[in-house]
Amino acid sequence: MAALIAEQSQSAGHAAVVDELRAQLGERVSTAEAVREQHANTLTWLPVQPPDAVVFVESTAEVVDIVKLCTAHRVPIIPFGAGTSLEGHLNAPHGGVSLDFSRMDKVLAVHQEDLDCVVQAGVTRKQLNDHLRDTGLFFPVDPGADATIGGMAATRASGTNAVRYGTMRDAVLNLTAVMADGSVVKTARRARKSSAGYDLTHLLVGSEGTLGIITELTLRLHGVPESILSAVCPFESVEGACDTVITAIQMGLGLARYEFLDDVQIAACNVHSGLELKQAPTLFLEFHGTAAHTREEVETFSEIAADNGGGEFQWAERTEDRNRLWEARHEAYWAARTYRPGAQAIVTDVCVPVSRLAECVCETKADIDASGLVAPIVGHIGDGNFHVVALVDMDDAKEVETAQRFLDTLVERALAMEGTCTGEHGVGAGKLKYMHAEHGAGIDVMRAIKKTLDPHNIFNPGKVVDLG
Amino acid sequence: MAALIAEQSQSAGHAAVVDELRAQLGERVSTAEAVREQHANTLTWLPVQPPDAVVFVESTAEVVDIVKLCTAHRVPIIPFGAGTSLEGHLNAPHGGVSLDFSRMDKVLAVHQEDLDCVVQAGVTRKQLNDHLRDTGLFFPVDPGADATIGGMAATRASGTNAVRYGTMRDAVLNLTAVMADGSVVKTARRARKSSAGYDLTHLLVGSEGTLGIITELTLRLHGVPESILSAVCPFESVEGACDTVITAIQMGLGLARYEFLDDVQIAACNVHSGLELKQAPTLFLEFHGTAAHTREEVETFSEIAADNGGGEFQWAERTEDRNRLWEARHEAYWAARTYRPGAQAIVTDVCVPVSRLAECVCETKADIDASGLVAPIVGHIGDGNFHVVALVDMDDAKEVETAQRFLDTLVERALAMEGTCTGEHGVGAGKLKYMHAEHGAGIDVMRAIKKTLDPHNIFNPGKVVDLG
Repeated sequence: MAALIAEQSQSAGHAAVVDELRAQLGERVSTAEAVREQHANTLTWLPVQPPDAVVFVESTAEVVDIVKLCTAHRVPIIPFGAGTSLEGHLNAPHGGVSLDFSRMDKVLAVHQEDLDCVVQAGVTRKQLNDHLRDTGLFFPVDPGADATIGGMAATRASGTNAVRYGTMRDAVLNLTAVMADGSVVKTARRARKSSAGYDLTHLLVGSEGTLGIITELTLRLHGVPESILSAVCPFESVEGACDTVITAIQMGLGLARYEFLDDVQIAACNVHSGLELKQAPTLFLEFHGTAAHTREEVETFSEIAADNGGGEFQWAERTEDRNRLWEARHEAYWAARTYRPGAQAIVTDVCVPVSRLAECVCETKADIDASGLVAPIVGHIGDGNFHVVALVDMDDAKEVETAQRFLDTLVERALAMEGTCTGEHGVGAGKLKYMHAEHGAGIDVMRAIKKTLDPHNIFNPGKVVDLG
Repeated sequence: MAALIAEQSQSAGHAAVVDELRAQLGERVSTAEAVREQHANTLTWLPVQPPDAVVFVESTAEVVDIVKLCTAHRVPIIPFGAGTSLEGHLNAPHGGVSLDFSRMDKVLAVHQEDLDCVVQAGVTRKQLNDHLRDTGLFFPVDPGADATIGGMAATRASGTNAVRYGTMRDAVLNLTAVMADGSVVKTARRARKSSAGYDLTHLLVGSEGTLGIITELTLRLHGVPESILSAVCPFESVEGACDTVITAIQMGLGLARYEFLDDVQIAACNVHSGLELKQAPTLFLEFHGTAAHTREEVETFSEIAADNGGGEFQWAERTEDRNRLWEARHEAYWAARTYRPGAQAIVTDVCVPVSRLAECVCETKADIDASGLVAPIVGHIGDGNFHVVALVDMDDAKEVETAQRFLDTLVERALAMEGTCTGEHGVGAGKLKYMHAEHGAGIDVMRAIKKTLDPHNIFNPGKVVDLG
């Protein structure tokens, strides 16, 4: 039966699946062009490849049924969270069905004593933190966008708090996933640690929907600190900013956020957020702890900064002042975008060992200057992770080519420094071409795992691993 | 060719491999009975199943050659670190070759600015910390024994510091492994984070030598805190001790160690280490931070403890006083062993959500009392992880049966509380029988991964996954 179906033309199989889904789910299946395009339209410069249909799922059991149907007809499935990924993760190069998780948005449990919670995959990070507001707990992982927890786990997302609280790799205690054979796997129990068998949680975190479809997750939470203090500090040089952070981390200072903005990004933020920050390499900082402890850390940090060419600190302790400061940082992407009206923002990231960060940023800035590109830099400096937002006139073929060459060089530089082609954005389709240079023989292991867990290549095909 | 060889008898293949290895490596291959037995003799009550030979390897390249040879002849390979595992991990039920890593004991690099180091798999944790002594950095993962880093990674070990510094899951940045086809995989780069592809690091950490043979590792290090303060505090009840720790963690206190010893374990420690501790549920604590910060945390913690029936604290700040205190904790295993002379110590561990820990420990103690067993309890209370050391007269068949029933009940109880059958000891052969109850459909995923990465089942066969 399966063999017969496989011999049918792709579109016949796809049409049959869409018909069947519509019979079962009615209005929760959409084939409207606008809806399909929106579900492949991520914040990327890659061309949009829409799915054949979008299904608004409501339960794990429903996902199981859809997976079984799509497996039988060899129709691709692309899970969709909030559509904020950056490397064409949601494209449907072979058509198929986009599974929209926006209706699976329940916080199922909060266990205050265990500092964890259980959520459906479609809950967004802001929604979760709103839900937690009265518990004294919070969920720290904060990519720029209000992404869904399922999408953040699938792409191994992180954000500004990672240096203290970790990334999605650290945040997910266990997850429920529907596998390609329709089985439902819960990857671990709710205990904080376990050494009972292979780590399926971490295998699925970062697999971008190519190995299993995440429907529920248990997340680690953290206590809201008694005192939060924010600051901005300009530096004479990129090296000075980097050395300050390296020393602070070595001394065990527990800052939650060490964010770096280069002079160009500061200029963009000044315009966009109406600020008057000095146009220099700048650190945005956040201290978490007891009142006495943050005061002590502020003092130590100020001394380290002064030793490394740091200028005058601007402090914010009241919530509204802190929010205004961090809003500028969180708006950095939009500030960059509007800094060159009409241009396409090509957002990329790499991550290197912290000791190489200053060198990597400076060489990248030299490369930007030499190429004539406009490209602000903003980074999670404590992790060695930074973003470049290249603002490109897509009608200028030569500029597009320059930008592409710049991106390739950026990745080559990061890899030469023992870094990675992406610290937090993921591979998607856009970074597939760098995977062999990064992983060598590891690619064969990834391919073997993909082939055995998704033998018909229906889970988000064309992403993460090139099947050769 | 491969098919022909597979049809040969097992022992002919094994003998051919041993002959070939001896021709290549000379005295670094041993078939002496004492050496073979010692290499399967772990701290377990499971019968010893020695390998056919022990090879003292010296390089990754050599491991590649051995893997290729053993694959061709379908001969099992069992990696050996320090032989301190607890669940028969090193047994050779189908014979084969034990790879002893004691000669791969080089610290290859320490990157102080990046807080990481690169080591060969045979480096032990104490050796590494001795090496780091003058750097201001340390490696925090501390299972009781002086295990090798390779073995600790393979079993996803942890220890007393995990609540603050994490387990081997968090400590390993990347590792080099020889796969069953002889390829050498480096699982990640040296950057702190990455979202570039499947997480092969975490797939291999905890895989107990069944998926690949770990030869090198890059580890996260931490700065030695300015101030370390240790304390011991008795409690009126197990609940009081647990509630104290839960509240402290919720309040964000950054203690490195929250260790629990029950009244029986305290009695054993008093005898073994010549102490005069009150025979009550007791916490051993360690505060890390700046001098001002640890003082502040001590004050807060003391208040929480007093609210929960905590008695008088005994403090230690000087290194020698701290060491004396912690020596008693680290000697707990030997204290337990000698508490009933002549008995076999059956050491096991489970881990549950912290909110269920008091209930789990109390029910376990009631079970111990009802069964008449002598079994001290010691636990990493901040993680919800505890050990029971059942002291069993192995010549008394009824007592052995009682102990076996007790172990099964302990695991059932932990699983019913959303816990795991092992928090840090691993599966080995001893806990294989609990894996299905714990993982359900996840077992099929583990089996599929094992079969695709080790198609001839030569890597530590009979451990972690039952191939069905």
